[in-house]
Amino acid sequence: MSVILVGAGPGDADLLTLRAARHIASAQVVVVDRLVDPSVHDLIPLSAVVHYVGKTPGESHSQASINELLVRLGQSGQRVVRIKGGDPFLFGRGGEELIALHEAGVACDVVPGISSALAGPLAAGIPVTHRGVSRGVLVVTGHVADGEFPSLRDMAHPDISIVVLMGIAHRAQISRELVSGGLSPETPVAVVERAWTSSQRSVRGQLDGLAVMEVVSPAVIVIGPVAAMSLREISAQLAGAI
Amino acid sequence: MSVILVGAGPGDADLLTLRAARHIASAQVVVVDRLVDPSVHDLIPLSAVVHYVGKTPGESHSQASINELLVRLGQSGQRVVRIKGGDPFLFGRGGEELIALHEAGVACDVVPGISSALAGPLAAGIPVTHRGVSRGVLVVTGHVADGEFPSLRDMAHPDISIVVLMGIAHRAQISRELVSGGLSPETPVAVVERAWTSSQRSVRGQLDGLAVMEVVSPAVIVIGPVAAMSLREISAQLAGAI
Repeated sequence: MSVILVGAGPGDADLLTLRAARHIASAQVVVVDRLVDPSVHDLIPLSAVVHYVGKTPGESHSQASINELLVRLGQSGQRVVRIKGGDPFLFGRGGEELIALHEAGVACDVVPGISSALAGPLAAGIPVTHRGVSRGVLVVTGHVADGEFPSLRDMAHPDISIVVLMGIAHRAQISRELVSGGLSPETPVAVVERAWTSSQRSVRGQLDGLAVMEVVSPAVIVIGPVAAMSLREISAQLAGAI
Repeated sequence: MSVILVGAGPGDADLLTLRAARHIASAQVVVVDRLVDPSVHDLIPLSAVVHYVGKTPGESHSQASINELLVRLGQSGQRVVRIKGGDPFLFGRGGEELIALHEAGVACDVVPGISSALAGPLAAGIPVTHRGVSRGVLVVTGHVADGEFPSLRDMAHPDISIVVLMGIAHRAQISRELVSGGLSPETPVAVVERAWTSSQRSVRGQLDGLAVMEVVSPAVIVIGPVAAMSLREISAQLAGAI
């Protein structure tokens, strides 16, 4: 009676951890978010039963129903692997699933994954911290399960980078509040869509233009002087060289 | 003429990415931080030339000398892998190494790693974000290369978790400033030493007791209501079960 919560990382299966890849390869039952990259799906054994949950428009599963499914599968005695995009515990609601499993008497272990909060910016050459430019990073989510999007006004610090996950829909509000909180309207901004996938795309701009940037979800928003940096692009592209 | 900057993750080599493990296994020359876990060292080919840099007391290499070494090795034409603990671009100074290599005409690529900023707390069962408890996480470093430790006074938000890397030496100041910035002295605090290694240890307390906690580096400090959570410990320990 067990379930393993596995972080799938930001995209390409090559960024799974060794431990995560081993768990997936030996799974009998898999519960996977639709947003997880196809290359990760390719690691699931053909013999495994696969359950897709969430997050396509018009067909989203409630967290409660996902928790129920995990409990039922966990009680079956099979090797159940729950694959979540990014890291299960950074806005991944892994904590809620773990608590539901525990309350039902189902053992659970967690394998961390690379979060797109840090690796998303890196994919576009942006270090979320850099000496002399940013002395820290604040990660928040733009996704609001219920109620209104909480204010970011008092989160504005000129030497702290801000990364917003799932924030595209609220980007006008994010921009307005950070400017009213004291950030310069000219603060560099970058949006990285589908980081570490074959369709990655990044757009640069400044904070007062964030609202009208032509960008789509899923994407990571980076706000701060580091968003003007482009370390990866100045380097040669060795990806796949080995 | 190339160098690959690889994030080694927080400890156990099992938390390397597939891509990182492949790069390490095919390296001809390796430049590695002393803090990297022995299990990661075990993946370095016996035939590889290994350079250890930094961070033992009395024998620390300057960043400039590390940059010079990387440039010289990169120009040799061999497969050079630079292994850095955690993620190369979250306080890893990977950006500085990448810029130095670029300026010398040496190609460079980066493989992200799992940062102890997120995975360190998780190792002790602490989700850095959790619905209804924390709506974001601020990651800062306590390490100061030159000058004084910057104030955290205006970083205090009751619903934002704070993670401090390399902050043990400054923990009295961190506690004092966050309380003067408005956090309750009773705010939960956890310190996780050597996360994801065989000698992991965690200590819980509250903010006004942080200064006198008996803890040692390397460690991650977590401040906020999530620091009172213990999701991993309520679950059975399946680590190594597969």
